Amino acid sequence: MDDVRNPSGATAIKGTGVVAGVAYAPVVWVRPRPALPEAGATLTEDAREPEFERFSAAADTVAERLADRAATVEGVAADVLTATVGMVRDRGWRRTVKKNISAGHPAEYATVAATQKFVGMFEAAGGVMAERTTDLKDIRDRVIAELRGEPEPGLPDVEGEGVLFADDLSPADTATLDPAHIIALVTELGGPTSHTAIIARQLNLPCIVATGEGLRQIPAGEFVLVDGALGTVTRNAEEASARATVLEFRERAAVIAQWRGPARTTDGHRVQLLANVADGNAARIAAGTQAEGIGLYRTEMSFLSTSTEPTVEEQAAVYRKVFDAFPASKVVIRTLDAGSDKPIAFANMAQEENPALGVRGLRIALGNEGLLTRQLDAIALAAEGRGENAPTWVMAPMVATESEAGWFAGLCRDRGLTPGAMIEVPAAALMSDKLMPHLDFVSIGTNDLTQYTMAADRLSPQLAYLTDPWQPAVLRLVKETCRVGEDTGTPVGVCGEAAADPLLACVLTGLGVTSLSAASTALAGVGAQLSSVDLATCREVAEAVLDTSGAAAAREVARQMLLG
Amino acid sequence: MDDVRNPSGATAIKGTGVVAGVAYAPVVWVRPRPALPEAGATLTEDAREPEFERFSAAADTVAERLADRAATVEGVAADVLTATVGMVRDRGWRRTVKKNISAGHPAEYATVAATQKFVGMFEAAGGVMAERTTDLKDIRDRVIAELRGEPEPGLPDVEGEGVLFADDLSPADTATLDPAHIIALVTELGGPTSHTAIIARQLNLPCIVATGEGLRQIPAGEFVLVDGALGTVTRNAEEASARATVLEFRERAAVIAQWRGPARTTDGHRVQLLANVADGNAARIAAGTQAEGIGLYRTEMSFLSTSTEPTVEEQAAVYRKVFDAFPASKVVIRTLDAGSDKPIAFANMAQEENPALGVRGLRIALGNEGLLTRQLDAIALAAEGRGENAPTWVMAPMVATESEAGWFAGLCRDRGLTPGAMIEVPAAALMSDKLMPHLDFVSIGTNDLTQYTMAADRLSPQLAYLTDPWQPAVLRLVKETCRVGEDTGTPVGVCGEAAADPLLACVLTGLGVTSLSAASTALAGVGAQLSSVDLATCREVAEAVLDTSGAAAAREVARQMLLG
Repeated sequence: MDDVRNPSGATAIKGTGVVAGVAYAPVVWVRPRPALPEAGATLTEDAREPEFERFSAAADTVAERLADRAATVEGVAADVLTATVGMVRDRGWRRTVKKNISAGHPAEYATVAATQKFVGMFEAAGGVMAERTTDLKDIRDRVIAELRGEPEPGLPDVEGEGVLFADDLSPADTATLDPAHIIALVTELGGPTSHTAIIARQLNLPCIVATGEGLRQIPAGEFVLVDGALGTVTRNAEEASARATVLEFRERAAVIAQWRGPARTTDGHRVQLLANVADGNAARIAAGTQAEGIGLYRTEMSFLSTSTEPTVEEQAAVYRKVFDAFPASKVVIRTLDAGSDKPIAFANMAQEENPALGVRGLRIALGNEGLLTRQLDAIALAAEGRGENAPTWVMAPMVATESEAGWFAGLCRDRGLTPGAMIEVPAAALMSDKLMPHLDFVSIGTNDLTQYTMAADRLSPQLAYLTDPWQPAVLRLVKETCRVGEDTGTPVGVCGEAAADPLLACVLTGLGVTSLSAASTALAGVGAQLSSVDLATCREVAEAVLDTSGAAAAREVARQMLLG
Repeated sequence: MDDVRNPSGATAIKGTGVVAGVAYAPVVWVRPRPALPEAGATLTEDAREPEFERFSAAADTVAERLADRAATVEGVAADVLTATVGMVRDRGWRRTVKKNISAGHPAEYATVAATQKFVGMFEAAGGVMAERTTDLKDIRDRVIAELRGEPEPGLPDVEGEGVLFADDLSPADTATLDPAHIIALVTELGGPTSHTAIIARQLNLPCIVATGEGLRQIPAGEFVLVDGALGTVTRNAEEASARATVLEFRERAAVIAQWRGPARTTDGHRVQLLANVADGNAARIAAGTQAEGIGLYRTEMSFLSTSTEPTVEEQAAVYRKVFDAFPASKVVIRTLDAGSDKPIAFANMAQEENPALGVRGLRIALGNEGLLTRQLDAIALAAEGRGENAPTWVMAPMVATESEAGWFAGLCRDRGLTPGAMIEVPAAALMSDKLMPHLDFVSIGTNDLTQYTMAADRLSPQLAYLTDPWQPAVLRLVKETCRVGEDTGTPVGVCGEAAADPLLACVLTGLGVTSLSAASTALAGVGAQLSSVDLATCREVAEAVLDTSGAAAAREVARQMLLG
C-alpha cells in the first residue's frame, strides 16, 4: 500500500501479488455500474405504452449484444452468456416491468422494481438460484445504462492488450474476460482468496489485489509494468527495460512449461503434487498436467445444482467420473462442506449471524448422519474395482475435536474407506496429537485455517492484510501439525491456495508437508521451484519464516533466501 | 445431553453447568410466544371502528399489567418495564395500527404490520435503537395474546419457589426475573456465554444450558434437583436426599461468603482477583466485594447510548467514575471494542457477512486513528493525579499481529499510559513471543479466543458443545501465552467467563496466569477454591487437563483431582 519511488523517476504502487507474472500494457478500467433510480414522477396514462416500448427496445439491444458476444466465446463463458441472454428475454420479468410501467413508473424504476422482485424470489429459493441474483442485477444495470444512453457497465472492449484495473471484479465481469486482450489484473480491494484471485489463477494471468486507493490515480490508457510476484504496479517505467523484464519472465515461464514431474528437491526429497478439482471435467483436464492425482475433490459442487439430495447411485455416478480421470492414482474426496458461502438448500441451517462460524461442514452431518453415510456409501460404490495403486482417501471438513474425528473415521472404516480430516479449524491443528491416532492422513486447508487463526473473514477486502497464508501464526500451526504427523507417521498435505505459491511450497516442504494440492495450472511452477532447492535449504527458510513478525516480512525473507 | 439413570430410580438429564449451585423445586416453564397471523380476510367498513377499540382495550390491559409490575420491582428492572409501558402507549405506534385496521386488516395482523414498520425504522437507526426491537416484538406478542384471550407469553407468575425451564431466555424475559421465586435456570439451548448464562451469573442463580430436547419431557410442576456445577437435572430424586444436597451446598456457600482476599494458594502463591465492569455503578458495587481492582472496563458501554462520538472531556468524565470507585487500585481499561454484536452507529462498518470475523475492535481504529487517540487522551486526562499504588493499564481488543501491537503501544506510551493487549485472536497467542516485547501486560479473552479457536460462534446455541472454555485446544494457547509471559516477565491475565469458574481458575493458575478478572459476584467462589489447593497441584491438574481430548473430559479430570 506504499508508494515506492526509484532512482529512474518511476513510481510504484504496492499491493498483494497473488499470481506471478509480468505484463507491460496500457491500463483499462472496468466501467462503473449505473446509479439506481428512486421511484420518481408518475407517468401520464398515454405515456405508458411508449415507455414500455422504450424498455423493450433497450432490453432487446442488451440481449442481442450479449448473444453476439456468446457466439465469439467457448465453453463455460458461452454458457454463462447464453443463460444471461435467456434472462433478459424472460417473459415473466418483462411482464413485471410492463405491469410497473402500466402503474405509472418510468422504465428505469420499473426495471429496478421488477428485478428486485425476482431477486427476492431467487433468494427465497436459496442454493443455486440465489447465486444467480448477481446475474439478474447485472442485466438490470445493462438495461438501465442502455435506457440512459450510457456506456454498458462492466468490462469494456479492448483492442490489442491491456491491464485491467477495477475496485473488485464480479463473477459476471469475469465470464467474458479474454486473456488474448486482458493480460493482467489489478484490483484495489480483494485478497489472495477473493474471486478475482481465483479467476486470475485459473487463467494464469498476473494478478495483484489490495493495492488500496492509490490505484485510482492511474488513468486509463497509461502504460504500467505489473509484477504479480512482487505485487508492484510501476508507472513511468522506461519502456526498453520494461520490455526486457517481460521477456525475462517469459523465459522463466518456458522453463516451467518444460518441467516434468514427479516433484523432488535437488537432493531427491519427493513431494507429491496433486490437483484441486470440482467436477469430472476439471479432473480430466488435470489428468493432462503433471498432477499425480487428485488432492481435493469438493463433493458440494455436485450437490449445488439440485434442490433435493441425489440418490446414492446418482452420487456414485458423479464420483466415478472423477475416479475415471485418474484410474491408477490417488484420489482424495472431501465430504460435503455445505454452509457458510456454499449454501445447499436441503442440507442447510437457517440464517446464521456468522455463517463462517456456524453449523457447516461435518457439523451438519452430526445432526444428519444419513446425509454423510449416503455420501460414504456412494464413494465406496464408485471406488469398487480400483486397485492397490489407486487409493481412495476420504476426508471430513471442519473437524475440531477428537470425538468428531473418531466418529467420522469409524463410519469410513465400516465401508473400507481410508479416513482423514481437513485441518482448517485452529483447534484441529492444536490437538493434532489427539486427532491423528484416529486418522490415516490429514490435509491442511490454509484458506480457512488462516481465516480462523487471524479471526478475519477471508472474503473481506478490508482485511486482506490479515488473511494471507504467509502469516507466521498460520505457518506455526502447520509446523505443529507436521511435527505430530512425523511422530505418528501420518501424511500431512496442504490443499489451500498456499500450495499454489512456488516459494511458499518450499517453506511448506521445509515444515514437513508431504503433498501439495492446488489448481492444476499452478503445479508446474511449484514443481520447477522445488527442483531448484535442496531439503536443507527448505528447512532453513521455514525456520527463518517462522521467526518473522508478519506476512510481508515472511514473504520477503523467503524471496531473499530462495531467489537471492 | 445423555440420560443418566442411577440405582435409586432417579434419572438425570445432562447439560452444560454454567453457574454452580443446587436447587430443589417444581418446574416452571416459560410460556411460548404466540404464532403470528398472516394477512387474512378484509374487515367490512363498519367492523373497523369496533376492531380498533378491541385493540386499544388489549393494549391498555397489557400496559397496565406492565405498569403494575414495574411498581413492584426496583432499579434496572423497573426502568426496563417503565420504558416498555411507554412503548405500548406510544401514539405513533397506535396510529399506525389504526391506519392498518382502517385499511381493513384485523387487529392481530394490524399489530404485526405496525410493529414491523417500527422494527424496520429502529433497525435502520442502528445502535441502541436497534437493540430495542426485541422489546417491540415482546409488546406485539403480549398484545396479540391478549387479543386472542391467551395467557401472556414469557415469564409466568410464580408462587413460592420454582426452577425456570425454557428453550432460551430473551432479555425481556429476564428483566423481571425475581430470584426470590425463581431459584434456578435450565435451558434447552444456549451456551456458557449466552444471555441466559450471563444473567444467571449476575443474579448468582444455579444455571444449566444446552440440555438438548430431553428437557421438554419434564412437565411443569414436577420437582427436580438442579446441580449447576455438575450440569444435571435429576427427576424423581428422593426428597430427603435432595434437600440434604441443597443444605450441603448452602454450607459451602457460607464458607465462600466468609472468604476474604487477597487470593492465594495454600502455599502462598498470589493470584490477583479483579472485576469486569461496564460502568461506574458496577465499579462501585465491585468496590464492595473482594475485588482488588478492575480487570476489564469495557469502553464501548459508554459509547452505546450516543449517536455521535462523545468529546474527550465527556469520555474522561465516564472513565473518572470508574477510577473513583478504585482510587488506590489497579484499573485496566479496554479501548473501544465496537463491531460484531456491539454495533456503534458512528464508528462502524457497513453490513458484514461474518461480523465476528470483520472490521471490529482495534481494526476500526486502524482506519480511524483519531477515534482511538481521543479515547487515550480521555483516559490520560481522567487518570491525572492517580498515584503509584493506582496503576492505569490500557489494552486493545482484537490485536492479531506484531505491527498492530507496536502501533497501539506507541500511542499509549506517547501519553504516559501502560499498554497491553487482549489475547483473543488465536494468532496473538501463537505469536506472543513477537507481541509481548512491545507490551507491559496481556489479558486473555477466553470467550472470543474459544470462538475463533473452535471456529464456532459463541452465540450459536447449536454449537455450545464446542464453545466451552474447558476445550483443551484453547487451554494449550493459554499455556503458550503464559510460557512467553514468564520468559519475558509479562503479566498474563484472563478476563473471559473462564475466570469465573473456580475449578478452571485453579487450572489457569497452574498454567501460569497471574490475575483473573470476572463478574465481581464470582470472585469469592474463585478465591475460596484457590485457598484450598497448592500451586503444585494446580500445575498437575493443568498438565492433566491439557492432555485430555475434549471439554467434558477436561472438566471431569479437574473435578476428580481437585474435589476428589
